[in-house]
Amino acid sequence: MPRGERLILSAITMNNASHFAHGLWRRPDAARQRDFEGLASWLELVRTLERGRFDMLFLADVIGAYDVYRGGWETTVREGTQFPTNDPLVLLAALVGGSEHLGLALTSSVFYQHPFPFARQISTLDHLSGGRVAWNVVTSVIENGVRNLGLEGLPAHDDRYRWADEYVEVVYKLWERSWEDEALRKDTASGVFSDPGRVHEIGHRGERYRVGGPHLSSPSPQRTPVMLQAGSSDAGREFAANHAELVLVVASTPKTAGALAEDIRRRAAAAGRRAEEIRFIVAMTFVVAPTEREARELDADLAASLSDDGIYAQISGHLQLDLATIDLDRPLDEFETEGMQGILRDMRERVPPERRAETSYRDVIDGFARRRFVGSPDQVADEIERWTAAGMDGVNVLEMIRPNSYEDFVELVVPVLQDRGLSQREYQPGTLREKLFGAGPRLPSSHPAVAGG
Amino acid sequence: MPRGERLILSAITMNNASHFAHGLWRRPDAARQRDFEGLASWLELVRTLERGRFDMLFLADVIGAYDVYRGGWETTVREGTQFPTNDPLVLLAALVGGSEHLGLALTSSVFYQHPFPFARQISTLDHLSGGRVAWNVVTSVIENGVRNLGLEGLPAHDDRYRWADEYVEVVYKLWERSWEDEALRKDTASGVFSDPGRVHEIGHRGERYRVGGPHLSSPSPQRTPVMLQAGSSDAGREFAANHAELVLVVASTPKTAGALAEDIRRRAAAAGRRAEEIRFIVAMTFVVAPTEREARELDADLAASLSDDGIYAQISGHLQLDLATIDLDRPLDEFETEGMQGILRDMRERVPPERRAETSYRDVIDGFARRRFVGSPDQVADEIERWTAAGMDGVNVLEMIRPNSYEDFVELVVPVLQDRGLSQREYQPGTLREKLFGAGPRLPSSHPAVAGG
Repeated sequence: MPRGERLILSAITMNNASHFAHGLWRRPDAARQRDFEGLASWLELVRTLERGRFDMLFLADVIGAYDVYRGGWETTVREGTQFPTNDPLVLLAALVGGSEHLGLALTSSVFYQHPFPFARQISTLDHLSGGRVAWNVVTSVIENGVRNLGLEGLPAHDDRYRWADEYVEVVYKLWERSWEDEALRKDTASGVFSDPGRVHEIGHRGERYRVGGPHLSSPSPQRTPVMLQAGSSDAGREFAANHAELVLVVASTPKTAGALAEDIRRRAAAAGRRAEEIRFIVAMTFVVAPTEREARELDADLAASLSDDGIYAQISGHLQLDLATIDLDRPLDEFETEGMQGILRDMRERVPPERRAETSYRDVIDGFARRRFVGSPDQVADEIERWTAAGMDGVNVLEMIRPNSYEDFVELVVPVLQDRGLSQREYQPGTLREKLFGAGPRLPSSHPAVAGG
Repeated sequence: MPRGERLILSAITMNNASHFAHGLWRRPDAARQRDFEGLASWLELVRTLERGRFDMLFLADVIGAYDVYRGGWETTVREGTQFPTNDPLVLLAALVGGSEHLGLALTSSVFYQHPFPFARQISTLDHLSGGRVAWNVVTSVIENGVRNLGLEGLPAHDDRYRWADEYVEVVYKLWERSWEDEALRKDTASGVFSDPGRVHEIGHRGERYRVGGPHLSSPSPQRTPVMLQAGSSDAGREFAANHAELVLVVASTPKTAGALAEDIRRRAAAAGRRAEEIRFIVAMTFVVAPTEREARELDADLAASLSDDGIYAQISGHLQLDLATIDLDRPLDEFETEGMQGILRDMRERVPPERRAETSYRDVIDGFARRRFVGSPDQVADEIERWTAAGMDGVNVLEMIRPNSYEDFVELVVPVLQDRGLSQREYQPGTLREKLFGAGPRLPSSHPAVAGG
């Protein structure tokens, strides 16, 4: 984080009862998390986040049930591992009225919706919220999601990025080029609602999509939502370097996170973008209490509720590898990295080769799925500073229990961050893009959505 | 309306600034209508509707710009004729928190979204709203919408209904058959979130869709939203008879409306449904003031603001006939009914053959697009009773200006309807289906979504 900049705070969760800390939904103090279907617990969450001056609520998504562990989705269903998961966009829309400043961010896969209705739903939400929308472009899809959407099998990794390239090309055309700034007139004197000379068809004809236009929505405050991306593969980094304004980092150490950020910034510069137009936030889970001792007690209590089956159902889906079929105590030097998601490859690779024989599969998986920082408010703030010193601009806070973890963070950690001059005490005016970058509300001119075509 | 039943009141509008009374957006008293992009004017509308104990807010939709009049969409854009139009589902979601009882109804074309994400967005909204969602299945699509969605040309009329049949089959399977009632457990003692033995894949393989399942959302309060339908062609009536719970009638006289209702009820009975499970509401525009004289003055003032171009842009799109290329003063006996929408065919056919030579195209179009009832509150109530006497169960109120027309209706007409014992004074408890039918919250067992498969 450059000197003088403030910390970006995001809350990452999902429209379900078990996002990542699987098993904890069973606890008596997780009643609000279990009641995810209704509006009440979410309104409480957004009030908490705005009290803590969080930048955004980010809803991840999945478009199918993880169906690899033990050969099917039964464990996923039984454990509630991101299942059921309701639609994130509809929930964010329902939260517009109960929030004022909070960014509303969602994952939407390029496989989930046709780009024409998707672009319009996003424009509508950006209008309703006064420019608070962010979109995490996702190119991954699990096998069960493929079957739900009638795709011809799981697209290959690079094909998915080619698909994503066309998808964003279509939505950029709709958001950025179909309506000129001066097109919407609402001129009661002349009777011109919009100037037809400044509204354009997009005439997209590509490999997968043919979209005529014009866009059905006039330009929303941000036009294109704040662009998020989380890829860590080579194709993913290239996509982030081209499109992302805010990169969602998952990394095991500040050093690997910093190296990823540096690499993406370098690629972005090569693509003609300015380094300061890209920010990085790292996913972290905290267990915090007034003292370290209390935090450790709380953590021991929470850890006892975690569910191996719930965790393995998700990780098996990510790896496309049934963890029930392998000996988890096998040493790491037998680990296949082929097809492995970034975080696991990353975690293996940070284990020095000479120590891989004494590190097991289980160690690595637990290091990913159970990783959390436990400490007092000052210790948590210190830990966050370790990551910002390595190039991170903020934190994407995962919950152990929702909204409890966010309540603890806002009550205990945010005041420390504010006292250290890291976190904002009041919201800045304007759209999400203006709040995050001090510029906007539209994309900077170097972004390919604007510079291209 | 059977004796003892109450009147159903719905407000039909769109997420835009010019739904039907085109040109009126230019007026000084239409400022709130012009500000349709934000949330404020809509929150005001839903408060007004709930004060008047309306059953629902219904948002129609269009998925392209009307592009027939004068050979393109320029007039549509200039006049703001249903353009721009933002997404209805996202707006309804944003209104959940600001309303308590109001039904949230939307049009969604079977061409607009793939059924898997659509079904999940609807389930999510039904969950968030406590079971207040209704869906108007639309099978029509305009040429510009076809191009936006990359379809292979405008599907033929009967093909569209075959497509719709498969579409509803998919969503019924997701809503009604993927999760058994007892599947969702959230059992903190046993750690079973959902019972995998009671969650099922749907394994749909049809002509257009392959959807595996299971549905990503657990059963919402209503499971299937209240099913609406507006078709008046033979295929449309058959579809309504099979699927609709509430039919949206557009008709020029109580007699034609009653005949349509009777025909659909007869077809429904033949399909094994019970007549009382289908209700009919008729679209009407009112200009009301405390006295008839004031109403006539208000109407003259409003009528002067209507725009021929705005109206013809829409009607040309509906007819797929460029009204700028024909002599509107041509007599009706030269009228081609081929390809004509139900209402225009209906209007022509109620003109006795011997009078068609002295009736013009313009008369018919004005009779459709400018039709409204003008009068005092008692006269409006009398007019509504003329329609209920002919078999209508309620009214779908179109605005001249939004929300002004609804404010007038709620302030002036609703008390009269309540005094006559026609309108409810308080909301009944429960979901939209329970409020409308006194039964529910799920579909009746005779409905094909439940009875089928």
